[in-house]
Order: sequence, then C-alpha cells, then structure tokens
Amino acid sequence: MYEGLHEECGVFGIRGAARDEISSLMYYGLFALQHRGQESCGIAVNDDAKITCRKDMGLVGDVFDQNTLEELKGDTAIGHVRYSTTGASTAANAQPLVTHYVKGTLSIVHNGNLTNCDDLRKKLEDNGAIFSTTTDSEVICYLIAGLRSSLPSVEAAVAGAMEKIKGGYALLVMSPAKLIAARDPYGLKPLCMGRIGDAVVFASESCALAATGAEFVRDIEPGEVVTVSDDGIKSEFPLEKRKPRKCIFEYIYFARPDSRIDGISVFESRIKAGEVLANKNPVEADVVTGVPESGIDAALGFSQASGIPYVKAFVKNSYVGRTFIKPTQQSRKSSVKIKLNPISEAVKGKRVVMCDDSIVRGTTIANIVKMLRDAGATEVHVRISSPPFMHPCFYGTDVPSCENLIACHHSIEEITEIIGADSLVYLSAEELADIVDDPGRSFCDACFTGDYPVTEGIEDNIR
Amino acid sequence: MYEGLHEECGVFGIRGAARDEISSLMYYGLFALQHRGQESCGIAVNDDAKITCRKDMGLVGDVFDQNTLEELKGDTAIGHVRYSTTGASTAANAQPLVTHYVKGTLSIVHNGNLTNCDDLRKKLEDNGAIFSTTTDSEVICYLIAGLRSSLPSVEAAVAGAMEKIKGGYALLVMSPAKLIAARDPYGLKPLCMGRIGDAVVFASESCALAATGAEFVRDIEPGEVVTVSDDGIKSEFPLEKRKPRKCIFEYIYFARPDSRIDGISVFESRIKAGEVLANKNPVEADVVTGVPESGIDAALGFSQASGIPYVKAFVKNSYVGRTFIKPTQQSRKSSVKIKLNPISEAVKGKRVVMCDDSIVRGTTIANIVKMLRDAGATEVHVRISSPPFMHPCFYGTDVPSCENLIACHHSIEEITEIIGADSLVYLSAEELADIVDDPGRSFCDACFTGDYPVTEGIEDNIR
Amino acid sequence: MYEGLHEECGVFGIRGAARDEISSLMYYGLFALQHRGQESCGIAVNDDAKITCRKDMGLVGDVFDQNTLEELKGDTAIGHVRYSTTGASTAANAQPLVTHYVKGTLSIVHNGNLTNCDDLRKKLEDNGAIFSTTTDSEVICYLIAGLRSSLPSVEAAVAGAMEKIKGGYALLVMSPAKLIAARDPYGLKPLCMGRIGDAVVFASESCALAATGAEFVRDIEPGEVVTVSDDGIKSEFPLEKRKPRKCIFEYIYFARPDSRIDGISVFESRIKAGEVLANKNPVEADVVTGVPESGIDAALGFSQASGIPYVKAFVKNSYVGRTFIKPTQQSRKSSVKIKLNPISEAVKGKRVVMCDDSIVRGTTIANIVKMLRDAGATEVHVRISSPPFMHPCFYGTDVPSCENLIACHHSIEEITEIIGADSLVYLSAEELADIVDDPGRSFCDACFTGDYPVTEGIEDNIR
Amino acid sequence: MYEGLHEECGVFGIRGAARDEISSLMYYGLFALQHRGQESCGIAVNDDAKITCRKDMGLVGDVFDQNTLEELKGDTAIGHVRYSTTGASTAANAQPLVTHYVKGTLSIVHNGNLTNCDDLRKKLEDNGAIFSTTTDSEVICYLIAGLRSSLPSVEAAVAGAMEKIKGGYALLVMSPAKLIAARDPYGLKPLCMGRIGDAVVFASESCALAATGAEFVRDIEPGEVVTVSDDGIKSEFPLEKRKPRKCIFEYIYFARPDSRIDGISVFESRIKAGEVLANKNPVEADVVTGVPESGIDAALGFSQASGIPYVKAFVKNSYVGRTFIKPTQQSRKSSVKIKLNPISEAVKGKRVVMCDDSIVRGTTIANIVKMLRDAGATEVHVRISSPPFMHPCFYGTDVPSCENLIACHHSIEEITEIIGADSLVYLSAEELADIVDDPGRSFCDACFTGDYPVTEGIEDNIR
Repeated sequence: MYEGLHEECGVFGIRGAARDEISSLMYYGLFALQHRGQESCGIAVNDDAKITCRKDMGLVGDVFDQNTLEELKGDTAIGHVRYSTTGASTAANAQPLVTHYVKGTLSIVHNGNLTNCDDLRKKLEDNGAIFSTTTDSEVICYLIAGLRSSLPSVEAAVAGAMEKIKGGYALLVMSPAKLIAARDPYGLKPLCMGRIGDAVVFASESCALAATGAEFVRDIEPGEVVTVSDDGIKSEFPLEKRKPRKCIFEYIYFARPDSRIDGISVFESRIKAGEVLANKNPVEADVVTGVPESGIDAALGFSQASGIPYVKAFVKNSYVGRTFIKPTQQSRKSSVKIKLNPISEAVKGKRVVMCDDSIVRGTTIANIVKMLRDAGATEVHVRISSPPFMHPCFYGTDVPSCENLIACHHSIEEITEIIGADSLVYLSAEELADIVDDPGRSFCDACFTGDYPVTEGIEDNIR
Repeated sequence: MYEGLHEECGVFGIRGAARDEISSLMYYGLFALQHRGQESCGIAVNDDAKITCRKDMGLVGDVFDQNTLEELKGDTAIGHVRYSTTGASTAANAQPLVTHYVKGTLSIVHNGNLTNCDDLRKKLEDNGAIFSTTTDSEVICYLIAGLRSSLPSVEAAVAGAMEKIKGGYALLVMSPAKLIAARDPYGLKPLCMGRIGDAVVFASESCALAATGAEFVRDIEPGEVVTVSDDGIKSEFPLEKRKPRKCIFEYIYFARPDSRIDGISVFESRIKAGEVLANKNPVEADVVTGVPESGIDAALGFSQASGIPYVKAFVKNSYVGRTFIKPTQQSRKSSVKIKLNPISEAVKGKRVVMCDDSIVRGTTIANIVKMLRDAGATEVHVRISSPPFMHPCFYGTDVPSCENLIACHHSIEEITEIIGADSLVYLSAEELADIVDDPGRSFCDACFTGDYPVTEGIEDNIR
Repeated sequence: MYEGLHEECGVFGIRGAARDEISSLMYYGLFALQHRGQESCGIAVNDDAKITCRKDMGLVGDVFDQNTLEELKGDTAIGHVRYSTTGASTAANAQPLVTHYVKGTLSIVHNGNLTNCDDLRKKLEDNGAIFSTTTDSEVICYLIAGLRSSLPSVEAAVAGAMEKIKGGYALLVMSPAKLIAARDPYGLKPLCMGRIGDAVVFASESCALAATGAEFVRDIEPGEVVTVSDDGIKSEFPLEKRKPRKCIFEYIYFARPDSRIDGISVFESRIKAGEVLANKNPVEADVVTGVPESGIDAALGFSQASGIPYVKAFVKNSYVGRTFIKPTQQSRKSSVKIKLNPISEAVKGKRVVMCDDSIVRGTTIANIVKMLRDAGATEVHVRISSPPFMHPCFYGTDVPSCENLIACHHSIEEITEIIGADSLVYLSAEELADIVDDPGRSFCDACFTGDYPVTEGIEDNIR
Repeated sequence: MYEGLHEECGVFGIRGAARDEISSLMYYGLFALQHRGQESCGIAVNDDAKITCRKDMGLVGDVFDQNTLEELKGDTAIGHVRYSTTGASTAANAQPLVTHYVKGTLSIVHNGNLTNCDDLRKKLEDNGAIFSTTTDSEVICYLIAGLRSSLPSVEAAVAGAMEKIKGGYALLVMSPAKLIAARDPYGLKPLCMGRIGDAVVFASESCALAATGAEFVRDIEPGEVVTVSDDGIKSEFPLEKRKPRKCIFEYIYFARPDSRIDGISVFESRIKAGEVLANKNPVEADVVTGVPESGIDAALGFSQASGIPYVKAFVKNSYVGRTFIKPTQQSRKSSVKIKLNPISEAVKGKRVVMCDDSIVRGTTIANIVKMLRDAGATEVHVRISSPPFMHPCFYGTDVPSCENLIACHHSIEEITEIIGADSLVYLSAEELADIVDDPGRSFCDACFTGDYPVTEGIEDNIR
C-alpha cells in the first residue's frame, strides 16, 4: 500500500563496541530501520554508568549530525525510531526513555503495544505513580523499577514485568552493566541478534545488522530474555511457553524485503504471494505492475507465475524534506501525482494488473486506479497480497478500530466498485498462511481473521 | 557582582485571562523575570483540561515566536525561567513539568531547592517510583500525586506535600480546574499575587506584574497556599506557623530593583547599603563607581552619603546572542574587556571607590580592579554591599559548597591583596539586617552567618 | 548508475496563475524536478513589479514551508533546483538571480553551461563589470542588461545575448511584465511548455507539469524564444537555424522516466536500451536485475527481450535527512550497504545479469558487483545501457575532464576485471542512436564520441 | 533616546594577524561595534587570495559560532555590522560584499551613505551594469573595479572612486594583497587605526580596538587613504583638502562612551552636555535621571553641575532574543514597561529632571514622561543634550525626511505639551559646538542647522 497503515517503531542496541564507534553504528542501524518509524528517533549511550541521551522529532539523518554523534560515547547503547503522526506535541513521547530509580538508571526502547496498559497504568497511579509521557513504555519502566527492589537482578525484574504486561513487544533495556533484550511470549514483534567483532547487537530486523556490518546470529525466541553483561550472554524463558503467534503483516508490508524474520525471507514471501494471486484467479491482461514500494514484489511474483510481463508504471518522488507541504484543498485534485506519477507509456491502451499489499481505507488505491485509467489503461485488475483487512490491531500498529477499514463496511464487490477496479482479488487467510509455510498457525493474522492471541484489556473492543 | 552567583528560577502563572491573550501575557511576564534564569524556559497552558506545553533551552525571546504563542491558548497557564548552566544535556530538566496521574494531569513550576530531596526521592524510589528528570520539582509532583488519591482536593495534596518537603520553594501547581500557589513556611523564595481585570496572576517578583499591566495585590505569605478556581480565591496556612526567614540576597543581588518583595523596595535597600558603606568607612576619594548592573545602586547610595561624585566607569556590552563564544586561551588576557570595558576618561588620575554587591570567587573583581588601574585609576577602594560570603546556600542558588568561596579561605586582608584593591570593606550582617529594617531577624542570611533556618537533609554539609 | 554523474539544474516558471496559488504551484513543480539538483533551490515572484526572492541550500521540502510560501505572492514566478556539491560556500550561487539594472529588475534561472563563459566574463570585466557569483547565469544577466538599453524589448535583449553565448542552456527570464523562455540553438538542454487554466508554465521536464496539474502543450524548439506577456504568447527564432543536437544523456539517466522530451518517452528509451543489450550479446543467466533507480528500466527491457526473469535484487534506503553522515574510514568497508543492500534470496546461487545506465569512475559499480557475489551470485554479467563514457561534457554536467572517467584510461576488458564482472557489454553509439530513433544524428553524444556540437571556448580541452 | 534614530553600520578589519586567530579577533571587534547595527553582520577572510565570506541576518553572537569561525582562516579580514530594520528581505544587503572583477576579487565593507548614489548607479546601469543588491556599497565596488583596469593599483582605483562618490563613508577594501581604509573628505564617518603585535587594525570606533586587545594608533584623517600591504603602511590624500565636517551625532548618541573619536572623548562630551544644560536653565528639582542608556551620561553631568542628586529611575530589560515579539494592539498600552520599567521609589513625590540625548518623533519620550508621572513624579522636566532635530540626514542614518521629526512641525512649547513635560530645554547648536570644543565649525550639525557640507544629489531634498 502506498500510504496507510504504519508500524509503530524499530529498536536497535549494542553492547561491547568501541567507545568511539558505538554512535556511528547506532546511527547506521537506526537508519536501516527508518521505514519502521519516521516521527522521532533517539539514542542513549551508557558510558561507565553515565547515561547520555539525545532524541528529537525527525529522521535519523536530521536529528543526528557529526557533533551530536561525537558526544555519544560509551560501551552500550540503545536506540529507537518512531512512526510519524501529525502534531508536534509528541516530542515528549520520543524514546529511549531514561529513568532514575532506586537502583540507578534504566533506559528502554520498545516496539509494540500493551493491551492491558490502561489497567497497569491505573494500578500504578493508584499507588501514586506519575507519568511524564503517555507511552506504554513508561509503564514497563515502572514495573521493572518497582520489581527490581525486591529481585536480585534487572533481568529478573524484566521477567517479572513480563508476567504482568500483555500484548506485543520487542524490548531493549539498558542498565549500567547490562543490555537486556526481551520478546513477548507470542513473538508478535520481531527481534534478532547479531555480532560485530566482540560486540553483541540487537535489532528489530536483520537488515539493520547488514547496515552495520554485523553478522546475523539468530532470532530472539518468543518469550525469551537475553542478557548481555561482562559475564557473557545468558538466555532465559521466564514465562510459560505458548504457541507463537508472530505478526504476519511484517512479511506483507512492515519489514524491509532484505530482512529475514524468524527464518523466513520477507522478499520470498512477497514474491510467493504474487504467484499465488496469479494462479488463484487467472486474468487476461497485457501487463502487471505494482504500487511502490511494497506492491512491486507481489507484482513480480504475479508476472513470473502468469507470464504476463511486469512493467514499472509509476515514478515515486522520495525527495521529501523536513517540512514537506501537503496539497491544499485547491490543489487536492492533482495531489497524488506529486509523490507518485504514472508512466503513461507503460500502460496506455493496456489491460493492467495492479498489485498492492493491502487496502486500508481505500481512498489511496482509488486514486491510483484512476491515475492508471487517466494514463490510458483500458482495464485495471487489482490484486491484493493479503486478505481483507477487517479487524483492528492492538499490538502496535495504528489501526485501533474498524472505523477506517473499508473491508469492515463493504463487500469485495462493493470495494471493487468504490475503488473503480475491473476486478479485485484478495488472498485468503489460508493462502497467506501457506505462503509463510505455516500449517500450524504459528502466526497472528487477527487483522484478517479476528482470532486474537492476546485479549486482556481489549475484550470490549473485539466483541 | 558582574558574574558569579545565580538565582535558579522564576515562576509566573495566570488564571482567568482571555483564551487568546494568555500566552502573550505569559510571554511578557517571563520576559520580565529573565534575570532569574537564562538557561531554559517554558509555558504550559490548560485549555478545558487539555494541557499544551512548550519548553526549550534558551531565552524567552528565542524559544517563543508568534506561531508557538498562538498554539498556547487556554484559561490557565504557568511558566518558568531557569538559570543558565553549561551543558546542553539539561533540556530534560526544563519546566513546567507536565505529569499524568491518577486524577488527570498536574503541571508544576518551581523556584527553589529542597534540602531533603534525596531522602524523599529515595523513599519514593523504594516504593517503585521512577524519575525522568533530576529535579526537585519531580519529587514534589510525586508527593502531590500520591497524596491526591487519599485527599479531597489538589490543594489538600499540595498542603500534604508541604508537610514533607523542606527547603525553599515558590510553587505554582496547575490542575484542570485550579491554579495553586504555595510558598515555603520560611518564605525563603519570593512570590506575589496581582490582578489584570478578572484574571489572577502569580509571579516571583512584582516587576513581572508591571510588565503585563497587572496590578500588585499582595505578597503570598510564608507557608501560605492560595487556590484560584471557579469558586474564587482561597487562602490556607496548612503548616504550623514559623518565624519567617526570607532570603536577604534577593535585595542584594537576585531581584530586579523595580521589584518590591515582602513590602520592601529592592531599589531602596541597595541605595541604603551604599549609604551605610559610605558612613561606615569614610575614604578619601575623587569618584565612586559601581560594577554594572547590580553594583551601580550601592555606588549611588555611597555617592549620596559621602558627597563623592558618582561616575559611570564601565560600558557593558549586552548584545550577547545565542551562541556567544567565550575567549580562548590565547585571547584570555583581554577577555574581560569584551563584555565590560572601562571608560578611561572617568577614572584616569583619580582615586576610585568601586562598589559591588558581593564577592564569590574573587577572580572577576580582581580583573575589574586591574582594568580600572590600567585605565589610570591611582587608587581603587572596593566596597561590597553585603557581608563576606562564607557559607554555601542550599535553598536554590548555585553555591553548593565552600570550595569556590574566597571568603571561606581568606581573611579580608588577604582578599584585599588578592583582588589588588587599596582597601576593601564589606557590610556586616547586622548592618545588612538594619538596611532591610529587620531587628527581629526575619531574614535568612545563612550564606553570611551560617545560621540556617532549615537543616533537614543538609546536616552533614553545614558541620 | 547508483552514484556518479549529475545533471546541474532544473528550471520551472509560471505566468498568469492566481496570486495566492502561484507559490504552491512553484513548490510542486520544483519538487518534481528535484532529481535534477539537490544542493539548493529558490523561487522569485513578481508581484506588480515588486520582486520577492527566497533561496537557500537544501531540498525544496526543507527550504520552503507554509510561511515562506505565503510570502511569495504574485502573477509570475520562476524557480530553480541546483545540483548538490560538497561545501556550504556555494549558497551565493543559488538561483534565481535577481538583478537591478537600467530598466528595472530582471530575474533569471538557468540550466546549462556556457562554453565561452570565461571569454564573455573577461570582456565584461574589462569594461568594468563586477560579479557577485561565479555562475554562468550572472554573465547572461549582464549581457541581457547591457543590450536592453539599446534594444526595444527584453526579449530582443535575450535574443541579442543568445548571439553571444555558446553552449547549452534552458533559460527563464522574468521582467516586471514578461516571462521569457529560451533554449539554446542545439537544444542541448530540455525545456517544455504547458498550461494550467489561463496560466502558462515552463519546465525542464514534462513530469513537472503533471505534478502541478498542468497540461503539456509542446517542447520549446532549439533556438526558440517564447515571450509571455499581457499581449499573449509570442515565438521567435532569433538565431540562424542549426541541426539540433539534443543531449542523449537525458534519456539514459538525467530525466525522470515519466517525462517525454522532444517527443520521445524517457521510459521507452530505457526499456529499448535493455532490449538491444539483450539481443546484442545473449548470455546464459538465471536472473536479470538493475541498479536502482535508473538501471531498473533497462533490466526490465533486457528481461523482456531475453526471457530471463527480472528480479529486484537491491533495497535502496531513501530516508536521507539533511545532514546524513557518510561512513568514516573505519566503517568504510560496509559503506555501500547503508544506502543499498542486496536481497540474498533473489541472487543466491544464481547467474545474474546486472544492468546499469553508465559507468563513470567504476568504483561504485565494483562495490555493487562485489555485494552481489557476497550475497551468493555465482556469475555477474554487467550490461550498460550506454556506450563507454570517454569524453568530458562541457554543457552542464559535472564531468569536466577525463581524469575520473575509467573508460578514458582502460579498455573494456580491463574495466571488466577492475569491476570484478564476468562479462561487460556496453551499447555502441550507433545502437544508442537507433534507440532514440535518430538516423540523422540530431542528438549530442559527445561524451561517447567526442563529436562536440559547440566548441567555442573549449578548443583546448577537446584536443 | 530610548528608541528612534539609528546609525547604519560599523566596520572592522585586520591585516597581518595569525591565520588561526583572525576570525576570533574579528568576532570580538564586531561584537564591540554591535551598537552600530543589529540587523545583519558578516566577515570575509582572505587566505592566500582565496576569499571566504560568511554573513547573515542577526547579531554577531547568533550568526557566528565556533564552527563557522574555524572556517574563516586567513591573513586579512574585513567585517561589518548593519542596522536592524524590519523585513527579512534585506539579507541580500548584508556585507561584506565580495565581487569578482577583472583583477581578481574585491571585498568591501562600508559605513555611510552616498548622496549621489542614484546618479552614479544610473550612469553605471546605462553602461550595462547590473546590481545584485540595493546598497551604495555595490556602486562603490563598481567604480573601483571599473577604474582598476586603467590604474596601476587598487588604492589608486579607490582614490579614483573617491573623486566620484559624494557623501559620508568609512570604507575598508580588501584585495588579495592589500587592506585599504578610506574616509570621506569631510570625515563624516569615523574610522581609526590600531595595532595588535604586527597586525594592523581598522575600526569605526576605538572601543573595538580595546575589545581585541589592540592599541590605538590614530584616527584616519578625513580624505585619507591608508594602504596596508607587504610593503608596509602607506598614507595618501588623493582629494583636494577640505575643512572637515565630522558627524557631531556620534558624540551625542551613536558612539559608545568608551570610544574616543578624532581626539575627543565621547564620554566627556556627554557629561559636558549635561553640565551645560544644568547651567543654562537652572530648575528647581529633587532628582535628576536619564533615559537608558544614552541619556544617563548627560544626567550625571547635569547632576554634577546642578547639585541635584542623580537617581536611577528605570530598569531596562536587555534579554531580547532573536524573535522578540512586540506587544500587539491589545497589550499596547502597557508596552513600554516591557523593555523599560520605572522604579517608583526613585521618583515618587519628587520633582524630576529627565535627560535624554535627542527627540525624534516624540512618541517614546511621551510614554516615558507618562511612566514617570504614573510612578509618582510630581514634575517632569525634560532636558535634551542636543538641539532640536529639524533636518533629515543623508549621510548614513535612517532619518531621510522631515516627516517623522517632531521638531520640524512643532515649536518647543508645543513639543513640551505633546510629550507632557513641565518644561523642555534643548541645547543650542552653539552650545553643542562648544562642548566638542569647535569654534571653527569643523563638525557637521546639519540635522540641527540645515547646513549640509555635501549637497550633490540631494539638492531637491534640502530645498
């Protein structure tokens, strides 16, 4: 999809790098995760128990320059990129969070959403807690800090907090002497581990390892807590084991195609999705194309399987600066052509299959279909490499309700008409599961099926 | 003194102003208090229970522009200016603090220092509290938030917190429906109340009332809590009454001369101090001058009492921009002439009396004495409008130890020699008390006498 | 090519738009031309003979925000984007140039390079001229201004200046009452005309028309001067007609694929180039891929003609902020993976054909070939959709000498080895000419053949 | 006067300083001249014939930071501060001007105004000249550049230009090998020379020498051209000698009191002016005060001569940041109290003599008189240390017409009433001349007398 659904965050951390190099490694790691969040970013560095943190609204390449990186020296560091919402007021919510508590300092970065966050927060507030942000992450901080006083180690406190928090999370916790990585028991959020020389690296996606020259070691397991300290690397599974339910949307849209998540190539999943779409509903067409960037992979798979030639039908303008101005009412009609413009020569007089990864509200894809017709396409057949998006996600994306989901309110036939397509085909949930080779349903596809792995705190929202 | 001791903060708040005007009133109010802190500043506005806060490093005239002020609309607002230390990392400590707690939101601004802050923080941390800043103010927030759940009102929680916190404070607390002003039981920090139309205004000094067109109503009493709500203005004295010990340094140096604090004119105190100095130790001299800005008033009083003509002997360059660069090693020798340059014509061939308000480390005044001699003064007699500064202050200034206090380590004779003066006279503590007309010792002059009104938490530091 | 050769500029202008809308049209027009230059940008607006100009270093989306656009109201406007070199000192060279001269004001924007600029500048200086920039554009300003006093109109002065200046140029000149577009007699630089309602628009490429909702009208002819005023649109050909020699590199690399230039689709040219490469030297391979962005089109054509499937083998990270930091020495080895990372799954164990548009220095492509091998490609066959780049360009790109051109110093066999490819095939100049359907050689391909259409002032450089 | 008349510029230059130190010397020199202009500032450095220039809107302490200063290395440098007008569009007019011409590069900074600038510009434009700024300084550049080709040296070209330009100017010209200082034949603008070690320094005022540790050598003579090169220092007087007419307003208001200009102390002149006022019209009063900053010196002189005690009656708030927001309509009434607030205790119940240096429009002083009365002054007697300002100045200040001069339209009696004073006394032109000890009228006091030394080009404006 060209615009619409957003992942909320990416995390990156290092322990054991050279004091002078750690900030540039963090920089390139976060830069490689920028697709997971463009609102704000930050890095906290531990230098012999002294924490320095710098975070601000903007891209990694805007917030950090040579001077600021040079001030961030240390042995351990964690960093974060956060999704871009409107409104400047969210600067307070940028991460890492750095807190002072009974045992010293604690810094955390966090990707994901807690479903029982309101309950936890309420309980903490009832005990006198105050919050300087509105993030789930601060709740997690509180829990860890509160448990730490009665428990022998930070990782024990992290484990204790994991007993209480429900939902999806990939978490990095930095104490003066340790770097701890934790993944929720269902593995809803991705997290992997790598190595550069003697340093241990954690990242939301493996593409960030490549960007720093780190070697991929393995994925963190659902429910696993990995602690890196002077004593080496320790792995623990503090919670009862559950069948994993990893987010299937990472493969469809969120992750970068050069990442492997839990042993599966994002790239291959997307190609396969296109192949399945091609085989499922053969269509007479002259060319197949994809909506940049995420629709292109499925289009290539579709082309391969169907024999219909792939064409590049769009130019995407990615030179968006800090203060890019959106079209106003008067220039709205031509709006989509500003960031995305069709190549008429590729589609004029042709029957076009157009692949995209998903449909959220349907307005953007309607514009794009219209653009293709205006550019001379005689037919536009839309193929979506995922099932209809019918249920909100509570684990860390920005679709908190049915309200804006076109598939909640309309049948496929109606959507076909609304978006102006000649035909519209989605993948089924089963086909999608096959693609990631998952006969045992170890993935979360609640947004398509309503089958939520975690329900604490969201009972009222999922009927 | 030209450079040296610093007040830590100024506070300003309004309830009941027009929604569109409140931010510009805040702006002018804080601008008038800028002498109390130049590091960072901020404003939080309550608009129908929604809080918007903007704060950053820099002067009021740098942080706020027309656009940012227009985003700050509401009925109630509090603001803060903070003293300029080195190091950018203190942005996290800028105020107002805005917190979310069990009863909604709470915003506070605070001038002063708690002496038992470490103890309080420790206790809170032991109960699981985490802190996102290193300020005393966040501790106060916690206490209020914790008490609020068991008490019927925010002001009751403020009162409850006042039972626990020790030290000097002028505090403004904004809840969705109230603006509360509180002053510590000794009145160590100043706080006054005014009115503009129907709106109630609180300010650290009365000069901020003048800047906004507000009329002075009265000083807040030591230990008083004033609550402004839709029900009007309510005054309470929740703590046992104590003999006040108001900070005498406000009159000597901190406050602006056009302010009246607790019924006493700052201007008149400074003039009188000069007069007392003149009468105490008559000196044969041709001219009397003062170190800008705070030394000038005493010089005028000295001139008046002694009949020795006052001259302006220095030009002060106040065009310091955001990133003013301090002289490097190589240009150090000429350094003082950059911000302060003597007028040779005023002092050449003359015996000069030079007044200043205090001596902290002695290095700056030594430079200035040398400047006068280089400019041709034949004698330089230094007169200080306060006693020797021999004891650290724990109530909200930046002199936390004896280490940098020249009067801790040297006799007056030695200081005279170190600073290169022909003579040096200080006021005595008794003379200073007379000046503010205080036979009953209702002022705190601990920095001169070591007689500390509040000792909780600082027992080890005061021997 | 992924990094290397750069076009120097793009121009955009409007006359007759609504006063309040003109700046947002300029904004979107320049944004669509951003690929032609990312160093600096600017807009000058004529509002009833009063010129307002805003220009600065940075992207269109960085330099202009809502406030600055609102200050740019008027009936006529011209704008410019300029190529990103290193060094901040070039701010003085940003365009538009706004000058005051005997007949009022004159603003110009200019894409291209004059070959006889030094001579012209020398003659002007001999007559007392002074220059505030080091641009060719200021020389053109001077000539127009000097001629205007003895000629009846600005367009006549533009025509007069065209007699003197040699080289490539697309020029927009704004006087208080006119907007004038001029293209050099060989048509070396592209320039086209469009319409939005009653407004006339000029742009370097047609993609900028699409971005503003303008309809394409026609290309400006080589040697043509188009004057737009209250009297309508006037076309003149002041110079003797010559056989055109339009820049063929626009089709290979500079222009956006959704642009049509002089009647030829950029997209189709690139597809054809891939087809010709495929037919010319058939190769046994498993997949074909392209270096983003410009190598992808040729790869698609190659795939089509050869039947070898196209794969996306790279992820390009385009989230580069204002101050993106380049890898330092220590992280150099992994450098290319920061902005470009291979997708192993696409190439592992495969014989890969990799298309790119050109080779300049050869270092980048060598890195990319190595990346593919490291990702598991068993063979890498490089196909270049242009002939060997052997001669400098003097008409407005940044390759002023042979020094950095690998093809000047090495045979194709040597280059194959240097870049680590299994085979390397270029297009021939004749094949390239066929692609743009040009039997009569109406294109400039001097960079490949050394056959320079304009030689004044560069005689010594071309041997 | 508190606000009103403005000097337009200050200049500063060095030749022969250490390559690494020159920019910090320039920085402190310009900082000391900041009172002569706060709109924009700039520094150009010559490093072995390569010129680097940095200039921008804002104070010296805003435009330059450590990084920018470090980029400015060289043997020779010139710099400029420019007066703050409204409107951002004047960035193009910031100085130094750096131009490229037939003999290389030429950089100039310039304080003053040419009266025949329009004529000169017209003649140049008729010969084809174009201008990128609207400054007089660019005209001077043109003249020097044009003459240089037929003359043997830059200084000869400067001399040639001086034959043509009329008006007031202090000029620094930097060529690759020379630094040239020139002062107009009447000496309307001040310029002096100093030394730091082997380096030669030029400055608008001697206070800038003190700020850099330079020793004062002498004033540049009216009509003198001083050339500093590897051959040493050369002095020439290329124009016919004229009786000097130095600007008397420098002593009244423009210059800093710690400067000496043409052998006369600014400080002493201001003290004397107060004395003359006191003796001229004795008044029964309790206190005398001055409007900060420039009215204070006269007040001290007045106090001395009359025996009426001087009081500080105002606090001036000088913490104005970059974007200080002026009071809007609604807060206008209280406006003056924002930057200037009276000290009631100093004036309550008293008859006050209030000194100021001049009255331009009369609105500010009316506000200030009202402030004193509101603060309780029973009488306010205004004393002005200059004659009525009745004629515009064409030599480099911002009073180009009679329109805003209250003394052009009203008698002293009327002004007394308009500003609400009990009495109003000005100095006479003769008294002022006596103060600077000038029986021979070697000063320009045209703003008081209408006796203009230079009339070329302004004949129509002076009737």
